[in-house]
Amino acid sequence: MASFLITGCSRGFGLALTRELASRPVSEVSKVFATARGDSPALIEVAKASSGRVELIKLDVTDQASIKKAAVEVQGKLGDKGLDVLINNAGVCQYVSAGVKSMDNLQDSFNINVMGVHWTTQAFLPLLQKGNLKKVANITTNFGSISLAPAVHYLPAPAYKISKAALHALTVQYALDHGDEGFSFVALCPGWLKTELGGGDMADLTPEVGAKASLDIIFKPNSETNGKMPKVLVKGWETKGHCYDGTNVPW
Amino acid sequence: MASFLITGCSRGFGLALTRELASRPVSEVSKVFATARGDSPALIEVAKASSGRVELIKLDVTDQASIKKAAVEVQGKLGDKGLDVLINNAGVCQYVSAGVKSMDNLQDSFNINVMGVHWTTQAFLPLLQKGNLKKVANITTNFGSISLAPAVHYLPAPAYKISKAALHALTVQYALDHGDEGFSFVALCPGWLKTELGGGDMADLTPEVGAKASLDIIFKPNSETNGKMPKVLVKGWETKGHCYDGTNVPW
Repeated sequence: MASFLITGCSRGFGLALTRELASRPVSEVSKVFATARGDSPALIEVAKASSGRVELIKLDVTDQASIKKAAVEVQGKLGDKGLDVLINNAGVCQYVSAGVKSMDNLQDSFNINVMGVHWTTQAFLPLLQKGNLKKVANITTNFGSISLAPAVHYLPAPAYKISKAALHALTVQYALDHGDEGFSFVALCPGWLKTELGGGDMADLTPEVGAKASLDIIFKPNSETNGKMPKVLVKGWETKGHCYDGTNVPW
Repeated sequence: MASFLITGCSRGFGLALTRELASRPVSEVSKVFATARGDSPALIEVAKASSGRVELIKLDVTDQASIKKAAVEVQGKLGDKGLDVLINNAGVCQYVSAGVKSMDNLQDSFNINVMGVHWTTQAFLPLLQKGNLKKVANITTNFGSISLAPAVHYLPAPAYKISKAALHALTVQYALDHGDEGFSFVALCPGWLKTELGGGDMADLTPEVGAKASLDIIFKPNSETNGKMPKVLVKGWETKGHCYDGTNVPW
């Protein structure tokens, strides 16, 4: 009977997560607040078929006022209950044309991928503290690992990598501050997914497979994941593609 | 006969670096472009006593126009020579009152500690490519290591730690892009210094000791430091304070 709030649900991984949660029994998932900046016919479809379990909420992670408004709305819908799980999924992958020296989108990446997560977490933390599960998953990528940077230098997306490294540092700060209260703040790598952000069909996993495997991590005991950056575990992919073997990625 | 440009020279570590370089023979240090946002009587003093080797340049790292103007000015002064060493020292350490959830200065820290370094590096890169030494030192702190975050959780400065982690990721992106040209981009930890930013007398090292030891790292062969985060090596401090043993800090 857990309640979820997910950002960036209009398409891709956020939409797949919402769909996966809606398919689970009410005994497991009581409510999904699926948030997005704009309208998404696919998301409306999922909500319509959910018998009221999926609720659409307007939320733009780059706009603090919009986040605060969404938090008030969600609080009203939860009544005296808390929120159990927050999945900070909204994000952007921005490219450059001529190496890091030509990077003109780092501030934009920081705003969406880091400030957006911080502001959303700030706004929903009181509700999460009242919740039973106390889980916050920040969706990320092993491309943001500074240790692994040489191996993924080929991808011309320095702002993506740098902003995700900052997101990892943010995640660990929250993990250290709130681990004692029973929270898990986890930087979760769902894998290279066949989404618009991921680059479509070249990628390794379908968003559906990534969503199921990510929920496996989210449902682990909080003490196992707090302040860590696990990759998903996908059978048959342990040594293929980006090696989805469930291990923690180094920072 | 190396030329240097340093940001944030009005006080603290930047001032100590400028003073140390000015004290070295002309055969080693031909020119120091000491940049600062505002006026500094102490810095003016150093310049006056330097027989023209230390030149003061106005540069505000949060203002791209100011950086570009400074680059044009420095180019004019160098004539057909390049710039040998850039030391991105300007930075800020911002605190919070009630943990990371109360953090309202992360954007500001990103602007000064990350965007400022990126913009300054972008602007001076063509001059550095014409230079002989091809060294860029980004001044940082082991408090920005995500791996070491649990050990330094006591310092209530999450924006400092998160922005420095982002700076490390930025440094590595430049290192990977420009290592083949012979560059070193190094994230350099000068230690906990008795400066205003460092918190004064409680700290481990004087800015003078930190400056000398930092130049030891800067003068190492570029291939040894490119894309790394070394701590300074200070005799007698290898196992004291923050252990200035010259080793590389993990990301």
